[in-house]
Amino acid sequence: MLKIGIIGYGYWGPNLVRNFMAQPNGKVTMVADTRSERLDLVTKNYPTIKTTKNAEDLFGSEDVDAVVIATQVFSHYELALKALNSGKHVLIEKPMTSTSAECKSLIKIADEKGLKLMVDHTFLYTGAVQKLKQLIDEGSIGKIKYFDSTRINLGLFQPDINVLWDLAPHDISILNYLVDEIPYSVNATGVSHTYNEIENIAYLTVNYKSGFIAHFNCSWSSPVKIRTMLLGGDKKMMVYNDLEPTEKIKVYDTTYNHSTDEEKRKIMVEYRTGDVYIPMLDSKEALSGMAADFLKTIEQGTTPVSDNKSGLAVIKILEAAQKSIKQNGKEIILE
Amino acid sequence: MLKIGIIGYGYWGPNLVRNFMAQPNGKVTMVADTRSERLDLVTKNYPTIKTTKNAEDLFGSEDVDAVVIATQVFSHYELALKALNSGKHVLIEKPMTSTSAECKSLIKIADEKGLKLMVDHTFLYTGAVQKLKQLIDEGSIGKIKYFDSTRINLGLFQPDINVLWDLAPHDISILNYLVDEIPYSVNATGVSHTYNEIENIAYLTVNYKSGFIAHFNCSWSSPVKIRTMLLGGDKKMMVYNDLEPTEKIKVYDTTYNHSTDEEKRKIMVEYRTGDVYIPMLDSKEALSGMAADFLKTIEQGTTPVSDNKSGLAVIKILEAAQKSIKQNGKEIILE
Amino acid sequence: MLKIGIIGYGYWGPNLVRNFMAQPNGKVTMVADTRSERLDLVTKNYPTIKTTKNAEDLFGSEDVDAVVIATQVFSHYELALKALNSGKHVLIEKPMTSTSAECKSLIKIADEKGLKLMVDHTFLYTGAVQKLKQLIDEGSIGKIKYFDSTRINLGLFQPDINVLWDLAPHDISILNYLVDEIPYSVNATGVSHTYNEIENIAYLTVNYKSGFIAHFNCSWSSPVKIRTMLLGGDKKMMVYNDLEPTEKIKVYDTTYNHSTDEEKRKIMVEYRTGDVYIPMLDSKEALSGMAADFLKTIEQGTTPVSDNKSGLAVIKILEAAQKSIKQNGKEIILE
Amino acid sequence: MLKIGIIGYGYWGPNLVRNFMAQPNGKVTMVADTRSERLDLVTKNYPTIKTTKNAEDLFGSEDVDAVVIATQVFSHYELALKALNSGKHVLIEKPMTSTSAECKSLIKIADEKGLKLMVDHTFLYTGAVQKLKQLIDEGSIGKIKYFDSTRINLGLFQPDINVLWDLAPHDISILNYLVDEIPYSVNATGVSHTYNEIENIAYLTVNYKSGFIAHFNCSWSSPVKIRTMLLGGDKKMMVYNDLEPTEKIKVYDTTYNHSTDEEKRKIMVEYRTGDVYIPMLDSKEALSGMAADFLKTIEQGTTPVSDNKSGLAVIKILEAAQKSIKQNGKEIILE
Repeated sequence: MLKIGIIGYGYWGPNLVRNFMAQPNGKVTMVADTRSERLDLVTKNYPTIKTTKNAEDLFGSEDVDAVVIATQVFSHYELALKALNSGKHVLIEKPMTSTSAECKSLIKIADEKGLKLMVDHTFLYTGAVQKLKQLIDEGSIGKIKYFDSTRINLGLFQPDINVLWDLAPHDISILNYLVDEIPYSVNATGVSHTYNEIENIAYLTVNYKSGFIAHFNCSWSSPVKIRTMLLGGDKKMMVYNDLEPTEKIKVYDTTYNHSTDEEKRKIMVEYRTGDVYIPMLDSKEALSGMAADFLKTIEQGTTPVSDNKSGLAVIKILEAAQKSIKQNGKEIILE
Repeated sequence: MLKIGIIGYGYWGPNLVRNFMAQPNGKVTMVADTRSERLDLVTKNYPTIKTTKNAEDLFGSEDVDAVVIATQVFSHYELALKALNSGKHVLIEKPMTSTSAECKSLIKIADEKGLKLMVDHTFLYTGAVQKLKQLIDEGSIGKIKYFDSTRINLGLFQPDINVLWDLAPHDISILNYLVDEIPYSVNATGVSHTYNEIENIAYLTVNYKSGFIAHFNCSWSSPVKIRTMLLGGDKKMMVYNDLEPTEKIKVYDTTYNHSTDEEKRKIMVEYRTGDVYIPMLDSKEALSGMAADFLKTIEQGTTPVSDNKSGLAVIKILEAAQKSIKQNGKEIILE
Repeated sequence: MLKIGIIGYGYWGPNLVRNFMAQPNGKVTMVADTRSERLDLVTKNYPTIKTTKNAEDLFGSEDVDAVVIATQVFSHYELALKALNSGKHVLIEKPMTSTSAECKSLIKIADEKGLKLMVDHTFLYTGAVQKLKQLIDEGSIGKIKYFDSTRINLGLFQPDINVLWDLAPHDISILNYLVDEIPYSVNATGVSHTYNEIENIAYLTVNYKSGFIAHFNCSWSSPVKIRTMLLGGDKKMMVYNDLEPTEKIKVYDTTYNHSTDEEKRKIMVEYRTGDVYIPMLDSKEALSGMAADFLKTIEQGTTPVSDNKSGLAVIKILEAAQKSIKQNGKEIILE
Repeated sequence: MLKIGIIGYGYWGPNLVRNFMAQPNGKVTMVADTRSERLDLVTKNYPTIKTTKNAEDLFGSEDVDAVVIATQVFSHYELALKALNSGKHVLIEKPMTSTSAECKSLIKIADEKGLKLMVDHTFLYTGAVQKLKQLIDEGSIGKIKYFDSTRINLGLFQPDINVLWDLAPHDISILNYLVDEIPYSVNATGVSHTYNEIENIAYLTVNYKSGFIAHFNCSWSSPVKIRTMLLGGDKKMMVYNDLEPTEKIKVYDTTYNHSTDEEKRKIMVEYRTGDVYIPMLDSKEALSGMAADFLKTIEQGTTPVSDNKSGLAVIKILEAAQKSIKQNGKEIILE
């Protein structure tokens, strides 16, 4: 039975506690938060969990085998570093850290100490993303040509990270999970409607050597909520609408072929359209799968779906995107 | 009764003929197209209209007061130039020409000769865009903060122009019609899935000095058709979904205010959400309004809604977008 | 080349003329309407078609092989009778006549005279209904258990027929086309919001001996337009939404099995849900297929999809429904 | 602090416990259920609540001021009777009892003993229904002409009550809440696809002397979930779609007027259509409002929104509907 300590009991914390408590091989033993009213909530609902205002108490406790960090992004690195140095396995909420250097440093330390370090990209554990992955892996979509994501709504303006750091990790982690090719460069533009220069609307293009392209539209300022992803393959195309209650994924038997008509010196494109297929999805709660994966990687040494390489890959793109925005959309080559 | 000659009887030509024929003060007298089967169609449906394979016949005819150019984009300039030089008023389908230099040249000649030169941005004449304009002009939306347009579907790959030149003129002309501020620069990225380097997917950001931002997502390769525009003001926000049969425009009583909390050194953003209002729209055919506007500008010397300055403004943005794409998304300052 | 005369050039007439004109083996030679402004429209668009205010002119003309009756329902019988007695084949718009006795009388006369008598249930020729029929016939839906149709909108109040006679023929003809079982009885309720006792809202249940049930919700007084049909089989279920531009039919791999748990003396029902499939549909204009079928039945003696038995079957149900409404919903056994 | 005992901890029970626990002036002290695994769930989540397999324990306990009955319908009467006879206030889940005689008997006893007897029609406490009520009461809808409800999905077949008893209480209680007129009669039809003669699909019409009509379409056998209600007034019309996440109610500025054209002896109907308005709704949990109303009626003697007269009115209609179904749709006059 692995003993879990959780730092941060804000919006996501209660979901983490509930899901780790429900695992057969894990339980939450401690929760840290600086706000006493949040700790009171823990005590009310889970009288067996110890609470503390000081995260350090978790690092020194024998009642904690692994630490989950669900605080504001700027504090991720320092907390994870201390946890690893105290010999605890670590799970960090997305985005993993504020810089890729911090990510790499944490990965190095975890490896040296033989500890597990994982990031929570919850969406990878949804029935929808698992189905997208399966359809791509079994070859029915063909070679992916583009990925186009829109994630906009009336969102809480974050004080320390911009809208890309807040929303795009979901979509970038899905992109990286589904597409093997290494991204080459990014361009990003955005605008801040407040005076802190933190963008509340931003657009990101990720470029690839093969001609594959990925685009992300993120906004905290849309009156309507949209959570839509298009993936075009050379055999079929898919639309993933996360707001649909049951029909989240539609697979279109649609594609186009092009040939060059030498004489006319132009491209002839032929479309093929056909049936649409809406696969049934596993409706298990994604966060429960994530929690189970974290416990499994600790107990069995397996590589989790949402591993730290995935966390680093997201940060690299976000870091480059930020540079591009600040340089007026200039292409930033990824290392 | 103004006599109209139309060059090009492809996809849009029949709509032009039908709408000009229905005007009380105009009629179509000649149609030119290089394809005899297209001309046969004209004759079958409109026995009174003369047809010719040679556009030059229109320029020399006394039966033609004004010429409508509905051919492929690369031919717009030359045909318009000849028409103007023959003393004919000219209406050009969007996009006006292939370069802004051509636009300017045509405008100069028309002005010198006292002839009318107009471009057909049909969408400006829709009940929906007229309502957006009215709501903005009467002040109920407040200062516009962003414009975000998605126009994607399984579209015909054009052999001479990319997807931005094909689709974005609709949205850029609407943007320019609704927002007075002069655009400052553009960034664009895109990809071509054929071998002719003509982009079938492209993303365009138009930047403004005030912090207003406009973004366009255009694709010929989406399995689903989306025609959605979001406009956020500091009083209200609007969504224009052109695929809705009757409820195209929704006005959200939604906005946010921000203040700076000095002590916490962070931005406090407060949302306000409220009722939604779906205004009834004028359902008159937009192309009929455009045709009437062209005849009116000739007869009465009025400035049409979709004037040649509007045509030039669109071309400037498209031209800069093309440069940006070819320079990997680099910001291109508009003149 | 069959020569067609059309009586009635109102809402549907122009569609009939256009589609019969487009047939390779037919053409419209005469149109009758009592309103001269409607006849002017014919002449303007089709200078070769003769027009008359007197339907009798068609019956006596050698230029007419077959007559299409597109007038108000109360006049169908008399006009069809005269046409048949003049030796013309006859196509009648739905609903066929005002009473089943009139239907039977016309069928008898047509048979005696060796003339073709057909009714225009256009929906049977749509790609959607053809696909429903195919899916049922090939057995993939299983035994149909229920049929539930909603056809409501802000409709024109008809002066001579109620909303069931106006709207339900579409759905009843589809029901009869898809389901072989003979209906046993009907119940109907409705209300008239005008003073003429012509119902503008009505509900119809058609009962069958096997336990299959069909229900129709028809209204001229709904602020929203709904055109939805559900068909539940014991293998799969289908939803037909005629307002969807491309995804009109969805096939759900959903069903339930029931068993009796003797001990608990209750029914155990198990659901099975699965993928959804949206078949691609033939997008050919339905009315063109109907026109071709009428010409074919005349030329080749084939039985049309929308034959006069189908017309009579619809009238029997409408007639019984009207009786039921006037007797406060009492079950009316069909003959 | 009122002490609540709850009988039945099935699907709805946990929601009742959670909402009564959250009231400032009430708490749940006991829960009874015959299944020990359900009681274990209570203990796990609420260690302070006593559990018992015997409902009688609640009636005799001083720790219980009021009893909530959330069991199968057939047991409602007996349990409520015992509770009242033990001097407890009673809240019963919808539908109140199996017969109107039982309802009346309980109401009489409660009145005699000065105890509160209420029924839980949760929907009356939703922001949506409260808004419908407000719009009607303030006169902006005008006189209501029709009410049309569809509540269908793949539902659990109930062993003791048919689909009308299961689903229609929601809609009938809303109808009665919104419309003052006393219903005159009902017609109902339905079908059972199992062998227990319990209908899984049923249609109900409620008739009124004034010409107002209400119709209910209920099904446990639809592959799609629909929760839609139309209300047509002579000033405006409303659509209530409970599945919309935020835009549940649309108010259409749509209506029709009719006049009689004496000469033509026909009804002239003129439509007026206009803007649509989507009011913002209170998003408070409905069940919390219901729980508060029950506590308030006990403490302050106020009449609750969902009072026992409302419970009885629903049962009268359901009882008549059942009679009508068993008599093949015959009109049943309500007492």
